[in-house]
Amino acid sequence: MVDFHAERMLGAAQRDAYLGECRSAAVRYITELIAARDRDHPAYRSVLDYPLREAKGLRPALVIAACRALGGGLAESVPTAAAFELLHNAFLVHDDIEDGSELRRHAPTLAVQLGVPRAVHAGDTMLSLALEPLLDNMRLLDLGRALRVLDLVARVLRRTAEGQALELGWIAEQRWDITPDAYAAMVTDKTAWYTFAGPLAAGAIVAEAAPAQIDELTRFALDLGVAFQIRDDILNLRAAPAVMGKERWGDLWEGKRTLILSLFFARAAPADAAFARAVLATPRPSAQGDPAAARLDRAIAVLGDRLPADVAAALRTTFRDTAVKRADEVAQLRTLIEPEIAGAAQIAAQFASRASERWASIRPTMGDSIHRDLIESILEFTITRDH
Amino acid sequence: MVDFHAERMLGAAQRDAYLGECRSAAVRYITELIAARDRDHPAYRSVLDYPLREAKGLRPALVIAACRALGGGLAESVPTAAAFELLHNAFLVHDDIEDGSELRRHAPTLAVQLGVPRAVHAGDTMLSLALEPLLDNMRLLDLGRALRVLDLVARVLRRTAEGQALELGWIAEQRWDITPDAYAAMVTDKTAWYTFAGPLAAGAIVAEAAPAQIDELTRFALDLGVAFQIRDDILNLRAAPAVMGKERWGDLWEGKRTLILSLFFARAAPADAAFARAVLATPRPSAQGDPAAARLDRAIAVLGDRLPADVAAALRTTFRDTAVKRADEVAQLRTLIEPEIAGAAQIAAQFASRASERWASIRPTMGDSIHRDLIESILEFTITRDH
Repeated sequence: MVDFHAERMLGAAQRDAYLGECRSAAVRYITELIAARDRDHPAYRSVLDYPLREAKGLRPALVIAACRALGGGLAESVPTAAAFELLHNAFLVHDDIEDGSELRRHAPTLAVQLGVPRAVHAGDTMLSLALEPLLDNMRLLDLGRALRVLDLVARVLRRTAEGQALELGWIAEQRWDITPDAYAAMVTDKTAWYTFAGPLAAGAIVAEAAPAQIDELTRFALDLGVAFQIRDDILNLRAAPAVMGKERWGDLWEGKRTLILSLFFARAAPADAAFARAVLATPRPSAQGDPAAARLDRAIAVLGDRLPADVAAALRTTFRDTAVKRADEVAQLRTLIEPEIAGAAQIAAQFASRASERWASIRPTMGDSIHRDLIESILEFTITRDH
Repeated sequence: MVDFHAERMLGAAQRDAYLGECRSAAVRYITELIAARDRDHPAYRSVLDYPLREAKGLRPALVIAACRALGGGLAESVPTAAAFELLHNAFLVHDDIEDGSELRRHAPTLAVQLGVPRAVHAGDTMLSLALEPLLDNMRLLDLGRALRVLDLVARVLRRTAEGQALELGWIAEQRWDITPDAYAAMVTDKTAWYTFAGPLAAGAIVAEAAPAQIDELTRFALDLGVAFQIRDDILNLRAAPAVMGKERWGDLWEGKRTLILSLFFARAAPADAAFARAVLATPRPSAQGDPAAARLDRAIAVLGDRLPADVAAALRTTFRDTAVKRADEVAQLRTLIEPEIAGAAQIAAQFASRASERWASIRPTMGDSIHRDLIESILEFTITRDH
């Protein structure tokens, strides 16, 4: 185990500065990519929307830190960092459609801003653009490395698609009987590959690291990724909305599969489970206004005097409240699942501890550098973060 | 100009057999690609859904025909053919979401079958999988050709995204003041690149054709593509539903931007234009049932006796009829635009004629082969097709 207090570590401010610089480098690269095509074409207007919103920028930093910690250069790692940043934001745009989310990083989601059709398209455009930095690699790096990065990205895309499909299947089948192992396997594919393992392994490939070292980094990153996601879900239940840049308890409003809910359903009394199932399966109300309510208004207007004003008013209220989640129900569910948070935190700690052990054997193989320390600080952040 | 009657040509049956064989080869390749991963993983269940439905299969045939007409082999062209087939079907899945379509190739769209979230994801999975045959090219072809094909595909993806963005922008801004030139530019990017120019140029690259020959084929293909799309839109207004595998007059139900409608709006009397605008902007009714109607039923049940049965029934009818397109309105619009079909057909004929002229100079540079004849038969089909 790494003793965080005994060794030189990056402070939070240095860590955030490093993350910010890497994110800026990736965003600058993407901006130039678009400018090289046609800066004003409507196809590219939304591509930078999410990347320019305030965010941690984990992925570009992990690509660049792994590359530099292993002796590679900054310039040769930036295109790959940009590719992961584009993929990540494309996934966010499509995830927000799939989840019906309305807020992302303190602002309305693209689906809310532009409607679903243009948001689907914006995500596709970002996925397509992500190919370009990987093609730039062919000119910037030797072909062998460039192809290995491209192969890795294809593998990462496949794992991500597989993890997303598992989760979407559980949602479609309204399944909640998900064991902690099944949950960890889903999150490994859905999140840990493209957030941690892909970026670290890609950076290591650019730095011409040995295959065994790349494998070790990958295993470390997958454990870290699961710990990170479980803690993220715990924080979603704890944080004030302003901190997350999302809705308060957004995962409950959304009905997202989390480890906490899996633990809850494994132990809940039948009545509590039935209540939770019903709340989670009910759609959230829309801050957008409700197109169906506008239709009801028009229909009521057509009926005129046949519908007395007080009945029309009661109908409007009932129609609005029918079949969307209510805040008091979500709050009650939040109270019900409180006891499971400790169990989920314990499982997260197990993954984090395994990641720490793997890191302890990787660390000495890297020279002393701020880049190595950045990776270590992300491990520490995962274990200690409260926002 | 090519005189179709004077020269040896592929008959319709031979042409369709050629298309069918190429499509089978592409689908077989995709099937093996999935089997090499995990045939039973839920992520891949929907990938073959659209590709296995009855379809012309233009793109794989154009890749293979161009490659073989220029001296290349079948085996070396199949992965690229499969990549274009995957991209095409991914675009269809996402287009069907963007357009709210319910039928595709005689069966419900994936969005209808699986819901929007899983359909967005299925399209993303298909886009991701399309990378794999292009990576296989690195092993199958020499690196130079494989990279040129990958570069081309990235360019095609970019053009397609640009064309789609133009069209989605017109829809979002409810614009109909689209000149024939603007329409042709949009369709060139949105459709002609990935349907004709990309496949033919990719096949030519695999066959190691000279850059000048690839350029000529590209220009031919872009003119052909515009002619093809305009005729497709005309046929959508003429064909019986069983022939298209889509709804009858689906483009009008959908409110799609077509050249015919652009010509109509350029000349329509203000009252006719206002009527057409209103009909086109109104959403289509859903064959799915109407989730809002179910909500209304629940709200009416909650109100109980306060809403007399006859008023409730009138409300249900009015609510259902409010703000969705009616068949009689669509039929009236269809009648209004009839006079514009001839004008659109004339513009299609101009593009087809330019394509024919370009073909007349490409043709002699290719040896006599069934593959060259296949390309020619697609040109003839575009000019003469009635289904």
